[in-house]
Formats: sequence, structure tokens, C-alpha cells
Amino acid sequence: MRRKEFELMDAQETESFLQEISFGVLGTTGEDGWPELTPVNFVFHEGALYFHGSKIGQKMANLKARPQVTFSVAKEYAIVPSYILDPKLACPATAYFKSVVIKGYGEPVDDLQQKAEALGAFMRKLQPEGGYDPIDAADPAYVPQLKATSVVRIRVERITGKYKFGQNLKEPKLSQVMDGLEQRGGELDAETIALMKAYCPHHQEK
Amino acid sequence: MRRKEFELMDAQETESFLQEISFGVLGTTGEDGWPELTPVNFVFHEGALYFHGSKIGQKMANLKARPQVTFSVAKEYAIVPSYILDPKLACPATAYFKSVVIKGYGEPVDDLQQKAEALGAFMRKLQPEGGYDPIDAADPAYVPQLKATSVVRIRVERITGKYKFGQNLKEPKLSQVMDGLEQRGGELDAETIALMKAYCPHHQEK
Repeated sequence: MRRKEFELMDAQETESFLQEISFGVLGTTGEDGWPELTPVNFVFHEGALYFHGSKIGQKMANLKARPQVTFSVAKEYAIVPSYILDPKLACPATAYFKSVVIKGYGEPVDDLQQKAEALGAFMRKLQPEGGYDPIDAADPAYVPQLKATSVVRIRVERITGKYKFGQNLKEPKLSQVMDGLEQRGGELDAETIALMKAYCPHHQEK
Repeated sequence: MRRKEFELMDAQETESFLQEISFGVLGTTGEDGWPELTPVNFVFHEGALYFHGSKIGQKMANLKARPQVTFSVAKEYAIVPSYILDPKLACPATAYFKSVVIKGYGEPVDDLQQKAEALGAFMRKLQPEGGYDPIDAADPAYVPQLKATSVVRIRVERITGKYKFGQNLKEPKLSQVMDGLEQRGGELDAETIALMKAYCPHHQEK
């Protein structure tokens, strides 16, 4: 069986990853021709991606001129050192990760009720323990704040989630990497080993 | 004294942040007009940024057509919950972070000796414990691998490092946030409090 170095996450896995990771990098195109990259907190809600800013800045100007935006969300699980697989050459060194890239159109959300709903989803994701009054466009305490906050929706054109957890490795290399990570015992190494097993076609077939 | 929400890191701090963080997001412009965002491991070495790939992919094609690239490196230290500052409104919720954005020109590194040097710096950053033979264009074991690996250099046009650690807060809010983070005691909260103190003009003057 041929194994690809990268594989695609399914829709459910992609969405749960977007719920887990707090920030991503927004890419727009600046007027100088350079991509503009901005790290922002975000929420993926009812099939669209939302972020906000307190002021209308360069991001918003770029979005008006060129609404095509790309959004990247990535998490690195492990840097795999070369010596796990080769005592001499540096070449097998690699990194295991999950990565989601969204291409879409950015548009401002102007309707106060829609803003309140998007910011509500944002808060439920990033402050799940609560501790605030529900964001409501009918609550006079929230109205001035809702008016002063820019909310942007990215309408999704394409969403691609991929991961790399050693799917391209055959035995005994796969086990060597798992053993090496177990021995290292870093913060995310146990989780990485579990994902290697979950994603490995061989382990799945057992 | 007026305090800005964001402040700029100096060159030394920016460089040490780039040495600490293992991956960033490369932004190029795709032929479809969308920004192309790709998370990659990188090293900042002698004033330029380097990354590599085993195959010539869409990234390289984009770089040839449009060499203007932007690179984003970010770390989130804390999500600051709203209730630390306000028992009712969600509005004070925010995130503290460091972020570096580099704009430059991407170009392939073809010379084997230069490739070996860049990949050596890459390995020293990402596998500081060693465990491999030095990467050397004169070592026959490395030559085929060096030839098969694409290395890209970003010649830096502009580099901007910024941080947000509550510099815009006045007392008693600044202390409230520090106390709230201390009580929470999350993984990065102690480090966040130390950075809030290090970056706060008031604490610096003491």
C-alpha cells in the first residue's frame, strides 16, 4: 500500500481542529503587492470564519480592494529528530503537524444582530467558562460596543485540512519514531504517538 | 504617559523570538489571485530567512512568478478572559502575544555550499542537541540529498516585531490582569506576567 506523506482530514476533524486552535493567520493582498499576514483570533461558525478588530485598519482597506482572503491555522505536534532514524545524516529530521487552509471572500458584518451572534460564537470558543452577559444587540450595554467593533466574515470557497504524522513511513521506521518520541517524553509526544497510531493505515486495519 | 496597545520589539528581541519559534506561515500570491499560505519550519540566519522543501511545488512556482513574500511568526501567550476586568460585558476579553512579520523577496538557493550552510543553521536551531554529521557540501553522503532539496532564501525588505502584553492598561487594571492570570495559573501565565512587568513602562521605571 502506498502511503502519502500528507493526508487530508475529513470535514468533522477539520471543524474540530478549528474549534481547538485559538488563532490563525489572515492573508490579504496589500496595495504594495505583498501579501499582508496578520495573526488573529477567530471562530468557525455555521460554515464561515469570523474575526474582529476594534478599529478599521489596513486589513479592512485591503479586504475592500481585494476580498480574496486566505486563512491558515496550524499546530506543530513534534519535531522529529533525525537520529531516531539515522545516526549520521540530518535528512530524516521532520515535523509532524495539522494544518487547515481556508480560501474565501472577506466581507464586513454590519448588521448588529449578526455581529452579536458571531461575537457570541467567538466568546463561547475562546472563553468557554463564561463569566459575561450574553452578547445581545437588544442589550443597551452592548450596543455602543457592537457599533464600535468591526466584524469580518470569510465566506468559504475552499477548505483544506491536512496532517503529517509519519503516514509515509513503513515498519520498522514507524515504530522507531514512536519509540523515540516515547523515550523523549516531551509535552505533546504521547498525543503525537496516539495520532500516529490513529492515522496509520496499518494500525487502523488491526 | 500614553501607552500604546501594541509596541515594537527591538532588533535583538525580534531575532531571539525568531530563534525560539519553530515554524511560521509563508505567504505568497497564487496565480488564482488568492494569497497562498503555507506553514513551514524556518531559520533566520545572518539577516535572511530560510526554509526548505523536498520537492518543487506550488510554493516555488508562485515564488518565481511573484517573488514578493511575507512571513508571519506568532506566539499567543494568554487569552485574557473578560471577567478579570468586567463582571458583565465580554468586551475586555483579549489575547496577549508576540508577532513578527517579514516582507521580502524569495529566491532559490542553488549553490550547494550555501544550501549546506543554510540547512546547517536550520538543524542547529531545530535539533540543538545534535546527533548528526555536520551538513557539508564536500561530504559525498550529503551531496545527493543537497541536490534533491529545494532551499529558499527570503531577502528581508522589512521586519516588524510587535507585542501586546497589556501596555495600554492603567492601574488598577494592570494589576487586576496580573492577579487574574496568577490565580488561573495556566501553563504560560507566569511567563506572561513576567513579560507584562518587563514591558510595562511603570514597572520599568521602578
